[in-house]
Amino acid sequence: MTLSEMPARGAATLGRERWDTWPTYDAAVLGFRNYWYPVAWSSELRRGGKPLAMTLLGDRVMLIRDRDGQVRALADRCPHRGVPLSLGKQEVAGTWSCIYHGWTYDLCSGSMVACLTDGPDSPLVGRVRVRTYPVVDRHGLVWVYMGDTEHGLPPVEVDMPSEWLSGPITLAGRITERAGNWRYAAENGFDEGHAKYLHRDSAWTFFRKLPAYNRASVAPSRDAQWITRIPSNVAMVADYPVVGQWPRNGWWKRGGRGPTTSIRLPGLLRVDYGEWAHYEWYVPTEAGRHRYVQVAARQVGGLEGARFSLKYRMYTRWIFHGMFNDQDARMVETMQIPPERLYRPDVSIIAWRKLCEHPRAHSKTQVSGSESRAQAG
Amino acid sequence: MTLSEMPARGAATLGRERWDTWPTYDAAVLGFRNYWYPVAWSSELRRGGKPLAMTLLGDRVMLIRDRDGQVRALADRCPHRGVPLSLGKQEVAGTWSCIYHGWTYDLCSGSMVACLTDGPDSPLVGRVRVRTYPVVDRHGLVWVYMGDTEHGLPPVEVDMPSEWLSGPITLAGRITERAGNWRYAAENGFDEGHAKYLHRDSAWTFFRKLPAYNRASVAPSRDAQWITRIPSNVAMVADYPVVGQWPRNGWWKRGGRGPTTSIRLPGLLRVDYGEWAHYEWYVPTEAGRHRYVQVAARQVGGLEGARFSLKYRMYTRWIFHGMFNDQDARMVETMQIPPERLYRPDVSIIAWRKLCEHPRAHSKTQVSGSESRAQAG
Amino acid sequence: MTLSEMPARGAATLGRERWDTWPTYDAAVLGFRNYWYPVAWSSELRRGGKPLAMTLLGDRVMLIRDRDGQVRALADRCPHRGVPLSLGKQEVAGTWSCIYHGWTYDLCSGSMVACLTDGPDSPLVGRVRVRTYPVVDRHGLVWVYMGDTEHGLPPVEVDMPSEWLSGPITLAGRITERAGNWRYAAENGFDEGHAKYLHRDSAWTFFRKLPAYNRASVAPSRDAQWITRIPSNVAMVADYPVVGQWPRNGWWKRGGRGPTTSIRLPGLLRVDYGEWAHYEWYVPTEAGRHRYVQVAARQVGGLEGARFSLKYRMYTRWIFHGMFNDQDARMVETMQIPPERLYRPDVSIIAWRKLCEHPRAHSKTQVSGSESRAQAG
Repeated sequence: MTLSEMPARGAATLGRERWDTWPTYDAAVLGFRNYWYPVAWSSELRRGGKPLAMTLLGDRVMLIRDRDGQVRALADRCPHRGVPLSLGKQEVAGTWSCIYHGWTYDLCSGSMVACLTDGPDSPLVGRVRVRTYPVVDRHGLVWVYMGDTEHGLPPVEVDMPSEWLSGPITLAGRITERAGNWRYAAENGFDEGHAKYLHRDSAWTFFRKLPAYNRASVAPSRDAQWITRIPSNVAMVADYPVVGQWPRNGWWKRGGRGPTTSIRLPGLLRVDYGEWAHYEWYVPTEAGRHRYVQVAARQVGGLEGARFSLKYRMYTRWIFHGMFNDQDARMVETMQIPPERLYRPDVSIIAWRKLCEHPRAHSKTQVSGSESRAQAG
Repeated sequence: MTLSEMPARGAATLGRERWDTWPTYDAAVLGFRNYWYPVAWSSELRRGGKPLAMTLLGDRVMLIRDRDGQVRALADRCPHRGVPLSLGKQEVAGTWSCIYHGWTYDLCSGSMVACLTDGPDSPLVGRVRVRTYPVVDRHGLVWVYMGDTEHGLPPVEVDMPSEWLSGPITLAGRITERAGNWRYAAENGFDEGHAKYLHRDSAWTFFRKLPAYNRASVAPSRDAQWITRIPSNVAMVADYPVVGQWPRNGWWKRGGRGPTTSIRLPGLLRVDYGEWAHYEWYVPTEAGRHRYVQVAARQVGGLEGARFSLKYRMYTRWIFHGMFNDQDARMVETMQIPPERLYRPDVSIIAWRKLCEHPRAHSKTQVSGSESRAQAG
Repeated sequence: MTLSEMPARGAATLGRERWDTWPTYDAAVLGFRNYWYPVAWSSELRRGGKPLAMTLLGDRVMLIRDRDGQVRALADRCPHRGVPLSLGKQEVAGTWSCIYHGWTYDLCSGSMVACLTDGPDSPLVGRVRVRTYPVVDRHGLVWVYMGDTEHGLPPVEVDMPSEWLSGPITLAGRITERAGNWRYAAENGFDEGHAKYLHRDSAWTFFRKLPAYNRASVAPSRDAQWITRIPSNVAMVADYPVVGQWPRNGWWKRGGRGPTTSIRLPGLLRVDYGEWAHYEWYVPTEAGRHRYVQVAARQVGGLEGARFSLKYRMYTRWIFHGMFNDQDARMVETMQIPPERLYRPDVSIIAWRKLCEHPRAHSKTQVSGSESRAQAG
């Protein structure tokens, strides 16, 4: 499937007011379930330490690192009286006890293994279960699978960038909760047009000459996992009827090829700068919020990796993941669509929406928050 | 009616997902109206002082102590323009004037006795009324009756613990607003199981050996006003399949009979320690909040009473009514039921719910907040 | 139309519980659109300075002063991706660019004149428009017309007090956002009765003897634009059955004719003190809020005007527009009607409601917020 270039038709046909052209995407307020999502740093979960509680795709989830070092994920609600399990504690390794009445669950299976305040012969033992979620530790990130596992569980590697799977790699990044539906964040990420205007004055692009405009198309990547924006007819400056010549680039700015931007399901953006790449995941939480996972990665290890990490901490983290992406955050937070009126560079957004019409099979793409919580009980 | 012991049936029949087995209770979001509730300390209302404004059973109410020392309770809304009467002032004893236009009401009957800004001949005098509520001062507490009085008004004594009615008594306590529906608070109070787990590590039980579990039944009290939890087959320690031996009591802990816990309508818990007793009322306010009235009482007066009060101020207030009951508050606040999955010790909760199916007659058990406000006009 | 005096009928016929007697008024939650409203001080908008963003009659609007000194008003939403235009910036005089993708609009017509990141040949240029609102600068205030202009645009002068239109005039005042629907604020302003009670103890009336009560009627002004309250049978003191003699005026208070109070559409009150007058506009914003525009005006200029301004800054602003009108604010904020129970002095409120049944023609009096936002796109 090669995505078509921007047609030369007029605005009337391009400006779509509603999202019902993409019904699966339109319904995916809480995202696509049959995928692995990175949701926390491995270092946030210490052995025998406190659990993390968060909402993922509408489900309240608790994450805990067991004493054997394994990370576990449970629905964060005791079926007994509806109290969050994340308030609880660990009596013995491999289990987790609700703080209220000591209902004790196996961290792997979610089955109640002991009902402390009802005695060893409690008839509920083995008959009550909390939902567990597949969870793994990879590259210093905790990955959770939110889908149903009746038809099998894909390996986490299928939802990782393939370039992370071989050779050394060094990661650094930031995870934050942000306002705005995850789709607003994803569309902002893959949006062809806005960098040329919104980000023109940021410190990150201070020495970089950005084009005035270009034509754009979208093509699948060689490994067919990503769709990538392909710029063409790049104009560094142009003469506009009312505005006149624009932009007025400072003499200190230098041109050069920009990064290559790609996106894939379930909501992962890659901005490839050649030597290193920026990744961001938009993890759905509630309807109007998302978990924003920013990662800078370079395929090096050892001393080179340490240098990359240091540069991240001293510079990239503040100038790129902070100031630059905070300009995006303000857009995602205040955006109110539909209705909308798309323009030629939004071919990238349309391609992304089309991609979302075919999420991974056996997934329940339209599970609402309350339905999924009911399942968790 | 002796409530049956926990049947030996399996979990499937015990785990009830919904509350429609107890329709009266299920509907009583704002509590039962035909009862007296203690809602404030007498000392909070000084003669000629400011009124207290609060929401009780969905009604906005103002309390005021008149110049003759009597406490009065009015619906906190002027029928004229809907402004809270509690913003008003007193022109002459026995009356209360709305701050907006000086509509002046008799504090006993609620009838408008003067319409200051309309002149002495105002045709509305005697034709407008705000609802008043029966209110009395007893034992240093202000008690309000929220029911309808068409069929008579029960004496406040019927809604007081009978042990308060004869001989000397000393009370001390705390009144706070808490999150969570009043029924969550009541169920938490009479809950057989949770003290053995939730409160195990509190300062209040630091020297107290708590059982691992016991069987429980519920029986009415001798005076038929309360239902009381009867523990049996108490096991101080047990050996659980996965968890092993539990609890691991410290050597400094001592056993001994625990207190006797009872509950009665409209939502009054008593925890009897023999020498003294703890009482708590769950006064419904709004759907998701309640007024939590904690009282420690000992049937002594004079010097003994003074010693009891002093100990309360120095110790019980902080360790029991503070830290210990704050553990409960967190449960009541985060609990989300139904659905729920009951277990054997919840026989106590089931007995309480059954009791609530037969509240005092002539009551409007299911009055919603807006209906009752409309009445108040 | 001379409004009838208060009928001598009893309270039963006067006490209206609902507002459906005045259906146009009842529906006008967001006000009447075909009018000019003063919404900001001219000095708040500097040439080339930042825009002001506010909600007016349910529409989100941005105000900006262009480099030629003209004030412009735009719907505060870019039709492209729904981001507020007020976050944007000005590339060249006469235009405004959305911060996100540089869609650039003509500030007068609202037409897109350049689509910077799509190139000079963007097919959307001239095909996308944001709604603009007529806006003028008069007497140091910025006035916006929120109606539709298909059937013409009335001159701003028709919505100004006629006494501002000739000769010198000096204005001073305060603009704030307040809680409560604009109709509560308007009714409070024109309310005959409350000043005699609510404001009796304010610093503003400290030396002023206020009547106990009077009869009231309402008559149109000579120029037929206002309706005016006409007091009669003024009683400075009276003897009430239960309350006794009231009010108990201090010896230091002096009587004298009070000010003349009038109101007109779309929600403008005038309190005429003879030498100067107080005006207040209730500009609808959202359902539960309004913009409260207080103006003190004297028909003088030069040195006299400067003295008036100084007195305003030193005294009137704090004692009248601050403390005195803050008593009103508390009423408007806590008022909850309907239901209501009107009394004789409320003839003024009834007259105002009747006036509102006939707002200026060609207006869409009942436009809801969402409908009007859709238009703005």
